[in-house]
Amino acid sequence: MKAAVWYGKKDVRVMDVPEPPSPPKGWVKVKVQWCGICGSDLHEYIAGPIFIPVDKPHPLTGNTAPLILGHEFSGDVVEIGPDVTNVKVGDRVAPDACQVCWECARCRENRYSLCDKLAFTGLMTDGAFAEYVNVPAYTMYKIPDKMSYEVGAVIEPLAVAMHAIRRAPLVQGDTVVVMGAGTIGLSALMCAKAAGASKIYTIEVAKARKEYALQAGATAVLDPTETDVVKAVKDLTNGGADVVFECIGSDKTAPIAIELARSAGRVVIVGIFEKASTLNFNALSFTEKEVTGSLGYYGEFAPAIQLVSDGRIDVEPLITGKIHLDDIVGKGFEELINRKEENIKILVKPF
Amino acid sequence: MKAAVWYGKKDVRVMDVPEPPSPPKGWVKVKVQWCGICGSDLHEYIAGPIFIPVDKPHPLTGNTAPLILGHEFSGDVVEIGPDVTNVKVGDRVAPDACQVCWECARCRENRYSLCDKLAFTGLMTDGAFAEYVNVPAYTMYKIPDKMSYEVGAVIEPLAVAMHAIRRAPLVQGDTVVVMGAGTIGLSALMCAKAAGASKIYTIEVAKARKEYALQAGATAVLDPTETDVVKAVKDLTNGGADVVFECIGSDKTAPIAIELARSAGRVVIVGIFEKASTLNFNALSFTEKEVTGSLGYYGEFAPAIQLVSDGRIDVEPLITGKIHLDDIVGKGFEELINRKEENIKILVKPF
Repeated sequence: MKAAVWYGKKDVRVMDVPEPPSPPKGWVKVKVQWCGICGSDLHEYIAGPIFIPVDKPHPLTGNTAPLILGHEFSGDVVEIGPDVTNVKVGDRVAPDACQVCWECARCRENRYSLCDKLAFTGLMTDGAFAEYVNVPAYTMYKIPDKMSYEVGAVIEPLAVAMHAIRRAPLVQGDTVVVMGAGTIGLSALMCAKAAGASKIYTIEVAKARKEYALQAGATAVLDPTETDVVKAVKDLTNGGADVVFECIGSDKTAPIAIELARSAGRVVIVGIFEKASTLNFNALSFTEKEVTGSLGYYGEFAPAIQLVSDGRIDVEPLITGKIHLDDIVGKGFEELINRKEENIKILVKPF
Repeated sequence: MKAAVWYGKKDVRVMDVPEPPSPPKGWVKVKVQWCGICGSDLHEYIAGPIFIPVDKPHPLTGNTAPLILGHEFSGDVVEIGPDVTNVKVGDRVAPDACQVCWECARCRENRYSLCDKLAFTGLMTDGAFAEYVNVPAYTMYKIPDKMSYEVGAVIEPLAVAMHAIRRAPLVQGDTVVVMGAGTIGLSALMCAKAAGASKIYTIEVAKARKEYALQAGATAVLDPTETDVVKAVKDLTNGGADVVFECIGSDKTAPIAIELARSAGRVVIVGIFEKASTLNFNALSFTEKEVTGSLGYYGEFAPAIQLVSDGRIDVEPLITGKIHLDDIVGKGFEELINRKEENIKILVKPF
């Protein structure tokens, strides 16, 4: 079968690889319909290895590169291993990407994206930029007949954003700032709206993304190159937002996220950071602001599918490109590098 | 009457000042029995003004320096203003120090130590290193007959620590690290013990304070000059503590507090910081650790008095010195500077 295999930085090869064997006990073989390119895939392409195991085998999967990328996917169950009861051949699914040990302290409280040995599909074991992928049955979520496979492939990033909303927790009536209008920022914005946020301000500099944010329901978009965003947010929200989501991952923006929150407000760090920030912790001890991180999801796939299915969240506008697997490097990774602003989610068809 | 008045850095004068007038509506005059020297008093002496208003009048009180210091106190109600119904002349009291507007958003949710216009008694308006002080009736908490005035004067710092415990929140069975064994660190340790923490590790370098921590119930004391405390805590707690309290206020220790917590663990920043720290926010987004600040108290005075009164927390060992107001500079501030390790709480008698 055809697959996109990560060999190293700037070395992702579309090549023929063996189709996965019949799935073992508790596993499922999925024929991939669509798989989205995630920021983490792009980072592995530009600057990897970041999450991909290279020198020593992954503690859960035993895998090292080369590995097939891809984890935001939808598809059809084509074969089930022994003891699989939650899906059957023919089911349309949007699997989550957390392969876990189920034994560590976090797994035992069902916070499985924090598993000590987390193996993310398509980063720490073979993924879904391929015609077929074998994954554990516990990652399966069925999608309704009326939901397209394209939308099914966007459930994964939506679940990441919904998890951040629930981590905050964002409660009805809250004023909100979302920093960044990429896939996760826009998804967080849509989730915040659906959760009853009273006002949602997006911080963004890119023209195209400002438009996306307004279309997705932002009360207003604030551009730090044009406006003192801290002052603006304080003026607009009576001293600071109730909840701030950092969905950029810049050493500069994380401390600003804390500034943007009101006293005793909540800040959720969703971004992944390349550099350390400078923070005076008086920003917390003088204000009782609460800062936490949000990683992946646990429990959000089913409600994400439900809210999209009910029409309460519309993820279609996130999909800005659809390409074939053969073109993943040029029309996928390179396109995302060269036209960063205009592109949100590019979906890849493996056949 | 005699009072200790802050005029400037290293310029605290014990002098005769006019006794406060009869208290206005809603206020109470207290004859001070004992008043403890707080770290913030010492900071104002060494390096002030920090909290003391100097250039412009305080927004709530209109006061500027010179101001009478002192806010950790006990005493007797000697006169009440009109409309005061919660205390009467002769009541023995341990007042809290938060004079607030009752109008801002935080006051309206009763998080009054976060009042936009917070005026801390003895820092932003005249305090209790004096024979008499006028304070609002809403700051009054009666102490039981059997509670000494000395213990009554330590309720304030105990409430600060108890607030941090409740902010975490620390729940029964948690493993705990308390960084620092000064008044607040030791109080947090005692509160954690009383709250049912399973193990409590104190991080401290000073010999005398290590002893205090062990006497107060620490499971063990870890000295960063002797031990890799991050590794030690991870080994002792299955990967990190459930809750960490930063009660030091060093730019170096705050990021370590985050390291000491387990994934999804809670970190409470109680310290006040002079310098900014370096923090890579991946420490939060990769782990879902929760970091928050704790400032003062709201609602902790009554339970603090109750737990001490019941014998569940013994604050007597915190009191390491008792002096007369005349000696506050030499035997108080200078003693605390010169013999930092041995002294925890020095109480001052104004008459």
